[in-house]
Amino acid sequence: MSLDALRAALPAHVLVTDPIALDVARADKSGHRALAAPIAIVEAEAVEHVQAALRWASEHRVPVVPRAAGTGLAGGAIAGEGELVVSVDRMRRLLDVSLVDQSCVVEPGIRNAELNELLAAHGLWWPPDPASRAISTVGGNIATNAGGLLCAKYGVTREWVLALDVVLADGSLISTGHRTVKGVTGLDLTALMIGSEGTLGIVVGATLKLRPLVEGGIWTVGAFFDDEAIAAAACTAVTAARIRPAIMELVGRDAVSMLAAYTGQPMEGAFVLVQTDDLGAAATSEAVAGILAAHGGRVERTDDAARSDVLVQVRRQVHFALESFGTVLVEDVSVPRSRLADMFRACEEASARHGVRLATTAHAGDGNLHPTFVFDGTEPSDEIWACANEVFEAAIAMGGTLTGEHGVGILKRRWLVDELGERQLELQRAVRAAFDPLGILNPGKAV
Amino acid sequence: MSLDALRAALPAHVLVTDPIALDVARADKSGHRALAAPIAIVEAEAVEHVQAALRWASEHRVPVVPRAAGTGLAGGAIAGEGELVVSVDRMRRLLDVSLVDQSCVVEPGIRNAELNELLAAHGLWWPPDPASRAISTVGGNIATNAGGLLCAKYGVTREWVLALDVVLADGSLISTGHRTVKGVTGLDLTALMIGSEGTLGIVVGATLKLRPLVEGGIWTVGAFFDDEAIAAAACTAVTAARIRPAIMELVGRDAVSMLAAYTGQPMEGAFVLVQTDDLGAAATSEAVAGILAAHGGRVERTDDAARSDVLVQVRRQVHFALESFGTVLVEDVSVPRSRLADMFRACEEASARHGVRLATTAHAGDGNLHPTFVFDGTEPSDEIWACANEVFEAAIAMGGTLTGEHGVGILKRRWLVDELGERQLELQRAVRAAFDPLGILNPGKAV
Repeated sequence: MSLDALRAALPAHVLVTDPIALDVARADKSGHRALAAPIAIVEAEAVEHVQAALRWASEHRVPVVPRAAGTGLAGGAIAGEGELVVSVDRMRRLLDVSLVDQSCVVEPGIRNAELNELLAAHGLWWPPDPASRAISTVGGNIATNAGGLLCAKYGVTREWVLALDVVLADGSLISTGHRTVKGVTGLDLTALMIGSEGTLGIVVGATLKLRPLVEGGIWTVGAFFDDEAIAAAACTAVTAARIRPAIMELVGRDAVSMLAAYTGQPMEGAFVLVQTDDLGAAATSEAVAGILAAHGGRVERTDDAARSDVLVQVRRQVHFALESFGTVLVEDVSVPRSRLADMFRACEEASARHGVRLATTAHAGDGNLHPTFVFDGTEPSDEIWACANEVFEAAIAMGGTLTGEHGVGILKRRWLVDELGERQLELQRAVRAAFDPLGILNPGKAV
Repeated sequence: MSLDALRAALPAHVLVTDPIALDVARADKSGHRALAAPIAIVEAEAVEHVQAALRWASEHRVPVVPRAAGTGLAGGAIAGEGELVVSVDRMRRLLDVSLVDQSCVVEPGIRNAELNELLAAHGLWWPPDPASRAISTVGGNIATNAGGLLCAKYGVTREWVLALDVVLADGSLISTGHRTVKGVTGLDLTALMIGSEGTLGIVVGATLKLRPLVEGGIWTVGAFFDDEAIAAAACTAVTAARIRPAIMELVGRDAVSMLAAYTGQPMEGAFVLVQTDDLGAAATSEAVAGILAAHGGRVERTDDAARSDVLVQVRRQVHFALESFGTVLVEDVSVPRSRLADMFRACEEASARHGVRLATTAHAGDGNLHPTFVFDGTEPSDEIWACANEVFEAAIAMGGTLTGEHGVGILKRRWLVDELGERQLELQRAVRAAFDPLGILNPGKAV
């Protein structure tokens, strides 16, 4: 494939063919890697660069992989042989902030944490809060409808995006949605774009809905329980008491024991972490502590920032602890909150049956679990995939879903039909084809 | 068109051809009316009835108008010559409520207020709150992505729907979305269905996201101002102070003077109504009252339920007051909150230029205005349409939208391209065709 026409349409430094850069684009943070490198990377610095790339790709029928920071966990941004990467990594400006409209306009490459630091100076906040917020981009958050720890109370990415500028497969630019709080003109293509994993178009600009920074203090409650079933019942009781914690996490016993070994700190049992915020946070945390204690939890409650951080680190350090024991494969099922204990049990039973090591953490506030396989070598074994298969099927059978927040990417395509059904899958493909009749956008990913 | 095959596929009492019922289906609450009556109404009592109706309609290429309570304001549920009405009005059961999952499962015909009465017994609440809540259905709220008074704080219908059961044009049944808080498997067809005004399929079941009833008291603040510009500036100052009222409404001077005549109560000026709720409501309302007074408002603040109701009625009675002066045509533009005063001025200038009577109220908390034409006779004059045209163009020029919460229906199709642009409109039509290749679902409505 000659790049001459593409080269002629772009500034020289925007078209990257350096082998090291191409090699990086073969992988993301999923642990997967394409067999060969892509043709080139368009490191777009302006909307017109994205448009020029897509016009060229359409003309030459070249598959395009949209990308930014490459932090995805499902392989959605992996680029291989014969593919062109269109990256918005360099488009990372905050273009406008309005306190009265409680909205801002950004380029897609801006990092989530970077944006929120800039917004804090205005007393504003964009709530989507994936664990990757320091390194992941707003565009990537939009492409996967990213979640995080705060979703039960503050919602997912979809709730915090008002309007998008999108370059379609043919290179044309459309503006979807509204800069207003309400708006129902036409089909909601903004919502459809969110979570579409680069299969419908490339987001080149976004108007985000903001809210004021939360008032009042933050209180943290940590508690160890004898097992996950009791811990999950305690979490369920918090929700049933109509309490809305900002964060409610559950770390399984295996993960806690790996964490104890990793940190050298003695701890055991299943760990529950709860944070409350906003006006009334102190009283709410007291109610939470009472419920956890009544379920047999060994409870600590604090508003001291340093001590709170120690408790939060029990949750945040888990991933590193697991990685110290081997290669990890992070799964991402979601179930109705009432089935949390059942899903923990299903994971435990499946791992025992297949003789694989599986440590599970959960966003207990919203029912999203991350069962994490820990293994030797670089590739998951057949036993691991067989176990993962059971985990997925159990989640779907409980009314849950294959992926709560990481996306389908290349990892979960084979289970799609189990969850969506044949007719819906066919419809999803027809919608995709309406956007991209030539099928050049992120082929082989998502639907 | 012979109905024999359809009659054979349905219980006798489900297929309605009574001329009085058919005549009712010619209109909704938009003030518009089809020239002739539809062929028949399928008063579905079960999912299979909807499926049978759509299979028959597909086979015979008969256009279908989805309908329930017929309370729409944009003509989306109006049925005319040669069309079949498929009504889900009788499907109004609450099938399941879960306190722990904070979700419920409903049939689409259940009324919004009826549902919320049932949920209140569980201490739960479905926040979408259109003014029509006593008479409009959850299915209709979903079809129009209904808004209301509480949107700035509590969001629109889209934020409160987890999953849908949808009968497609060919009669097949799909289940979109997730019963879980998070879920990113496949394109978000649930969000796409919301606000699609019956053009993509017929919703026959919904899993709704709920939240606990709000704690703490409710405080009400009312204030009269010399004009709309000052009142709008006061509202802007409330938002700029990072206060999040549950309700913030602005009633223009003309509407207030018609209300004074209607009720016999002396009042004048532009009226602002603010309600605060949740923990800290009293302190928040005090801050609001201070801001409104500093802008010259004649302020009253109360938590007495009876006195509060008097203030709220100033807003709620406006529609009836306007109707006592003639026929009304309610418009529904939305602008960024910072442009509220500009939009009031644009309405005033346009009505003066065209010599028509236009009284405006606004959901000031979210920037959604309802400029309302009041006229003699049954049909709006050419001057009214010319004035409406200016109002729409002004809203779009301010970064706003044609319709904040009522939908496009048949009323606003001619302005669609101004807001969406040719390329997006073409794409919207392609998406519609992916769902409904024969074009039988609500033809001539929405996109």
